[in-house]
Amino acid sequence: MDDRELLNVVMGIVGRENCLDDCAELPCGDQILVVTTDMLHRTTDFVEGMTDWQAGWMSAAVTLSDIASMGAAPKYLLIAVGLDDWKSLSGVMQGAKDCCTRYGATIVGGDIDRHGELTVVTTGLGLVEKHHIVRRKGARPGDLVCITGTPGQAQARLDGYLQYEKALFEPQPRVEEGRLLGRAGVSAMMDDSDGIALSLYDLMSANGYGFAIDAAKLPLAAGIPAEQARELALHGGGDYELIFTIAPGKFPVAGVSSTVIGTVVDEKSVTVDGSPLAKRGYQHRWE
Amino acid sequence: MDDRELLNVVMGIVGRENCLDDCAELPCGDQILVVTTDMLHRTTDFVEGMTDWQAGWMSAAVTLSDIASMGAAPKYLLIAVGLDDWKSLSGVMQGAKDCCTRYGATIVGGDIDRHGELTVVTTGLGLVEKHHIVRRKGARPGDLVCITGTPGQAQARLDGYLQYEKALFEPQPRVEEGRLLGRAGVSAMMDDSDGIALSLYDLMSANGYGFAIDAAKLPLAAGIPAEQARELALHGGGDYELIFTIAPGKFPVAGVSSTVIGTVVDEKSVTVDGSPLAKRGYQHRWE
Repeated sequence: MDDRELLNVVMGIVGRENCLDDCAELPCGDQILVVTTDMLHRTTDFVEGMTDWQAGWMSAAVTLSDIASMGAAPKYLLIAVGLDDWKSLSGVMQGAKDCCTRYGATIVGGDIDRHGELTVVTTGLGLVEKHHIVRRKGARPGDLVCITGTPGQAQARLDGYLQYEKALFEPQPRVEEGRLLGRAGVSAMMDDSDGIALSLYDLMSANGYGFAIDAAKLPLAAGIPAEQARELALHGGGDYELIFTIAPGKFPVAGVSSTVIGTVVDEKSVTVDGSPLAKRGYQHRWE
Repeated sequence: MDDRELLNVVMGIVGRENCLDDCAELPCGDQILVVTTDMLHRTTDFVEGMTDWQAGWMSAAVTLSDIASMGAAPKYLLIAVGLDDWKSLSGVMQGAKDCCTRYGATIVGGDIDRHGELTVVTTGLGLVEKHHIVRRKGARPGDLVCITGTPGQAQARLDGYLQYEKALFEPQPRVEEGRLLGRAGVSAMMDDSDGIALSLYDLMSANGYGFAIDAAKLPLAAGIPAEQARELALHGGGDYELIFTIAPGKFPVAGVSSTVIGTVVDEKSVTVDGSPLAKRGYQHRWE
């Protein structure tokens, strides 16, 4: 059992149509309200050395990233905190609040509970104009495949490159970039929190088209041997870059620093330099 | 430290105005979107003997109850499930879905995570017309204090009265009643999930007015000595009845089974038959 197999169990109960994107979409006047929830906790997500403030920041950031990946503007956050030590509360709340303030959202509700380990569940609400929303589905053969920033840095820190600690401990969701990409009419988008490889397989599943990636075009983290940096970018977890597809005539998008790494292809396969890309990245294992 | 003291820590960070009611309120076209989140888990909330299905039902029910207490109609639920055993997933999801279906809501999103103990965080969204929303604040001296149903049954099961198991394991949120009470113009409302006594103190804090309760008027669970049944109603936890205040001329409200238990008074005190009511009910303790 892995995360994606468990998702199939959920789909069988609540309906496949309610499990396809980074956020749910709800009508709200002339706009669309997007909503998403994420559960993080100490043993899996809050790496040793992280402060309470950083745990709070990260919890907000992962949810704001899901909202950004729909092209929406984050507006509201609810936060449920399970505490093994009540003294963690103020740090966690301040970190979440500072992340929200940085990206234009407000904390409007929450819950507090005693718990065996620090557990934080954030629910984010964002707003987007109907014609600017971006979903996982929408890619067309011939579109460019692009990514913001430099992927692989969070996993690099996990693998011992301490200079990338901020990428892992204080992720910066691509909120402004998501808004600009939505307005520019990108054809599909998601964040790469489980790594580029799994994101591409998710996008292939949503679109029915494949992707041909050019290894030489991957932006690589500095100070790491190229082959390892490529592995980190493709299969590492913990990044919150946006991966998107876009018609060639619309690229580049003003104000968004991003790199073309391949193209959308008719064949249902994900390849790097012509060879199949392993379907491997960040996943929980369930025994 | 108890829950209400920890809430003061949160208020200091996110602002008191964001912590006052059962739900947050957000504008949504001509209506108001109300949003609330609740964290439940095995050691505190899912009593021994409960099935996975009941844990899922209860998780949805507590959140739908918060929405009902604003006079709103539940529309959407997000559910994050932390699992110590992945085989619990389908039961939890089915229970949450069945509760949502019963009360008119749809599950639109969620998250799954491995966890040391079963943990379920539900976030509910509801809609209400602007002039039908009900808040904790709004009670006026002379208003009647009322409660739906028969309080104390969930705590009765915890205290060994096994005939009340369904009240504890499968709470029925007062969704239809909440809608009718909102449309009838009740002046203040909340649910009594921590017991009547703590609810009255919360309402006093929100309104600046007190309450005079008449012990003889409290509806009591059958088959329990009267004095104990009164204690369960006033100080027991786990019920999801609605406690509300209403101008005498508007009572009763058609379609809502409820009982007058007292009146709103000018003095800032909560009394039963003239004596102060102990500020005691369901609260976590934090050491």
